[in-house]
Amino acid sequence: MGGFSFFSRLHDSSNITKLLVVFTLSSGGIISYSESQSGHGVRTLEPSLRDVKKKKVLVLGTGWAGISLLKDMDISSYDVQVVSPRNYFAFTPLLPSVTCGTVEARSIVEPVRKIIKKKSGEVQFLEAECVKIDAANKKVLCRHNDDLLQGKGEFLLDYDYLVIAVGAQVNTFNTAGVMEHCHFLKEVEDAQKIRNSVIDCFERSALPNISEEERRRNLHFVIVGGGPTGVEFAAELHDFVQEDVVKLYPKVQDLTKITVVQSGDHILNMFDERISSFAEQKFERDGIEVKTGCRVISVSDKAIDMKLKSKGEVSSVPYGMVVWSTGTVTRPVVRDFMEQIGQEDISKIFSVADKDNSGTLNVKEFQDVIEDILVRYPQVGLYLKSNHLHSVTDLLKDPQGHESKEIDIEGFKLALSHVDSQMKSLPATAQVAAQQGAYLARCFNHREDCKLNPEGPIRFGESGRHQFRPFEYKHFGQFAPLGGEQAAAELPGDWVSTGHSTQWLWYSVYASKQVSWRTRMLVVSDWTRRFIFGRDSSRI
Amino acid sequence: MGGFSFFSRLHDSSNITKLLVVFTLSSGGIISYSESQSGHGVRTLEPSLRDVKKKKVLVLGTGWAGISLLKDMDISSYDVQVVSPRNYFAFTPLLPSVTCGTVEARSIVEPVRKIIKKKSGEVQFLEAECVKIDAANKKVLCRHNDDLLQGKGEFLLDYDYLVIAVGAQVNTFNTAGVMEHCHFLKEVEDAQKIRNSVIDCFERSALPNISEEERRRNLHFVIVGGGPTGVEFAAELHDFVQEDVVKLYPKVQDLTKITVVQSGDHILNMFDERISSFAEQKFERDGIEVKTGCRVISVSDKAIDMKLKSKGEVSSVPYGMVVWSTGTVTRPVVRDFMEQIGQEDISKIFSVADKDNSGTLNVKEFQDVIEDILVRYPQVGLYLKSNHLHSVTDLLKDPQGHESKEIDIEGFKLALSHVDSQMKSLPATAQVAAQQGAYLARCFNHREDCKLNPEGPIRFGESGRHQFRPFEYKHFGQFAPLGGEQAAAELPGDWVSTGHSTQWLWYSVYASKQVSWRTRMLVVSDWTRRFIFGRDSSRI
Repeated sequence: MGGFSFFSRLHDSSNITKLLVVFTLSSGGIISYSESQSGHGVRTLEPSLRDVKKKKVLVLGTGWAGISLLKDMDISSYDVQVVSPRNYFAFTPLLPSVTCGTVEARSIVEPVRKIIKKKSGEVQFLEAECVKIDAANKKVLCRHNDDLLQGKGEFLLDYDYLVIAVGAQVNTFNTAGVMEHCHFLKEVEDAQKIRNSVIDCFERSALPNISEEERRRNLHFVIVGGGPTGVEFAAELHDFVQEDVVKLYPKVQDLTKITVVQSGDHILNMFDERISSFAEQKFERDGIEVKTGCRVISVSDKAIDMKLKSKGEVSSVPYGMVVWSTGTVTRPVVRDFMEQIGQEDISKIFSVADKDNSGTLNVKEFQDVIEDILVRYPQVGLYLKSNHLHSVTDLLKDPQGHESKEIDIEGFKLALSHVDSQMKSLPATAQVAAQQGAYLARCFNHREDCKLNPEGPIRFGESGRHQFRPFEYKHFGQFAPLGGEQAAAELPGDWVSTGHSTQWLWYSVYASKQVSWRTRMLVVSDWTRRFIFGRDSSRI
Repeated sequence: MGGFSFFSRLHDSSNITKLLVVFTLSSGGIISYSESQSGHGVRTLEPSLRDVKKKKVLVLGTGWAGISLLKDMDISSYDVQVVSPRNYFAFTPLLPSVTCGTVEARSIVEPVRKIIKKKSGEVQFLEAECVKIDAANKKVLCRHNDDLLQGKGEFLLDYDYLVIAVGAQVNTFNTAGVMEHCHFLKEVEDAQKIRNSVIDCFERSALPNISEEERRRNLHFVIVGGGPTGVEFAAELHDFVQEDVVKLYPKVQDLTKITVVQSGDHILNMFDERISSFAEQKFERDGIEVKTGCRVISVSDKAIDMKLKSKGEVSSVPYGMVVWSTGTVTRPVVRDFMEQIGQEDISKIFSVADKDNSGTLNVKEFQDVIEDILVRYPQVGLYLKSNHLHSVTDLLKDPQGHESKEIDIEGFKLALSHVDSQMKSLPATAQVAAQQGAYLARCFNHREDCKLNPEGPIRFGESGRHQFRPFEYKHFGQFAPLGGEQAAAELPGDWVSTGHSTQWLWYSVYASKQVSWRTRMLVVSDWTRRFIFGRDSSRI
């Protein structure tokens, strides 16, 4: 479920001290915020209407990180704008439950405006998508996706601080046919589409002039990706079929088949292996086929081509519906932003450090920019710590441990990207994103205090401290619901819990984590309704 | 809200006695059923799998009439198939509540399969749309609307009895631009689309580079048609804006405008005039503009052209959203069916009666077919009774009361169509449709008994009785919710009730009329949720 992380930095358009904090975020989203003591940004939008004393914070995205930031942030000292193409926050961990109607889509969403209304200061929400970030001029181009506006849906916003919390998009690994024929499970709309598509498969298979073979094809549900999302959807679907569908659609029980395709050797391989094998055994008992070590080559409208890694042969499997959940990749707008500022900035540090313009840095020259690197890339500091390295120059050692005497820009980038790949270890979960949002909120709230009394770690090679403590992720455990009122959970301290009691723990944790009392009541009443009446199979 | 009724009759492909009952149905739907002592119908579909002893009943549609029929019918003596493009029954009187989230769409639907599962006999449900009825061969062509089936979605079904309960479609009166730019409120999907469209209007109006004028345009909601549906939607929207939206969208209160356009002189003109004026006064207090005597000429993407009947001038009114609810019209498949069998049959009766082949009937000849007419067109009997006429020949009198000596086929059709227009008076409501479905179920259940002991009225001009009593509609009253926890109701016995208590009566009646305990619980909990937390404004 490849998490995502990258080095991002601000374009240094003036010689003012800047602070940049960059995070890897749930589902590959990113939060970055930049601080500049004074801004050269041209105000494009109604400058007279804004409180010029307050710094403008522009938050892109209303997912876990964005909402967590907004909930914790002291809005009164900032002029906050929030831009998102969705005017609601969705409790994404319950999306798999929405696919089969265990929980209703409406029960897991809360309007952003309702969340920000509770804040003391004023927050402006704009329903639009960020299409372009102009880091040099500190402007963001946004678009409200509505034909009726005839071009008036585009507008520019400027900012002093930009928070990018837009999340990522699905990663198809450029597999042919995936975009056209597969379902995804990232957004509320995705879950709603899956729900209708599942019902369609059953209704289609009940039509009179369909052959037995075609019925079987229609009722073959394939899930590509054995991570928590794919596994939970498979479990939900199995429960839906066994508990509800069989009562209403005659003869489907023997024809329905669920297959989970996983490229690795085990499903849920990011969990403790006790959980992996518990899940595999449960799925085997349930009749859910798990194809491990298997890669999807292409998807056509009725069949999915796969290759078993061990044998190398390609088989074509007919399907009725495919859900693709193999992880995420950066959104183009963010990739573009990274390209704008990232490369430029690395080159800039490098060229500033390269005092003799030799095109390479010697150790002395490199040491002069170490401090800057550590401020700009907190990952580097975390990496050094976790790898018991003492200085950034250790990064540049070759595999034999010999220090390079001269470093060129490519070697420099290579070293940074090595750190990057190692820092992928933070799981791409709501939990991580929420903590990062809360961390950022704390930074905003303590900005003045921390300027006077920096609380961060001591700076390498220079006196004083960093302004903020780096982000530290606290893992409170993770659940994997497996259907049939059974769940597995990884709890802090190497604890693993499986079975019915874990499912009840899951219910109580998920109920308590709801963003509002309204959604809490709705989710709990959905669960109750499901226990009493089962899931609804109306195709709406 | 023009109800709909027509003369329909079976193509007489053999010389066997037939009975045909035709009803005008809610929303212009039709139920017709035909009985033949023995069928010549070719069985196209798996003849060996069917119980050849049982008569095949094919029910088209799962609205109020279809479901009411299925609930009451003794399935065990028939081989029943149900065909509908929607695999659920929707409690349509609550559709206006769905448009603004007072009630969730999911709370007012119940899967057809769940309803028929409770029956002792076996009922087959097929999710498909009826595209063509071949009355001559007693076959129906159905289509499951799914590209994935690549032509295999079409199939033929044959029947002994056909129940047409497909409902009607919206009537645009061929007004230009209505289909392209207006919303309707007939189906669950319509209500869901309206809900999102309302939110879109508010989100659009909150964007930064929109002029005040454009904001006003976006927030102008126009409802065309002052019948119960349009009025209830206007009331719901007003409540939604005042109770929920104003809290979340700054400054909308002054910009939002709701207009009801009605071609007649009053809104709710099918109700008692006390209700009409109560509603008009309430809307005036609420600031909902009511434009009476006003016809819509055309609708473009941003403006609606209307003509005041009194002045004759056309004004162009900018709008953000239009809901069109001016009544219904027959579906093409039903119109086609009527053409197939209707005209033919009238001509047949006429030519059988015209013994001297003169092209006209004299009174003696006409009297010979009176009995047949009364059996075939129960409306005629009802009409005669309600107009204190003694015989069908009275229909043929000219305005001065002179009896025509000779009747040609056109005059004959004219007389029948006059009856037809007079029989439109049954309101196009769920209540009527449900009663008609229940009546039909009773006919099916008593078919054998009634063959031996006919219970209908004495036949004109011949001995014996009709097999079944004609359908009689019992009006139990009708509600018009007007927003702000106020409703008006027309109750039996010229009783009119208005105000808060009526709204509570509405709540209890609508809760009690739910089709299942599940939807009852859901609807009541939706109401409760709305009282506590308000309506959700997430755009999903």
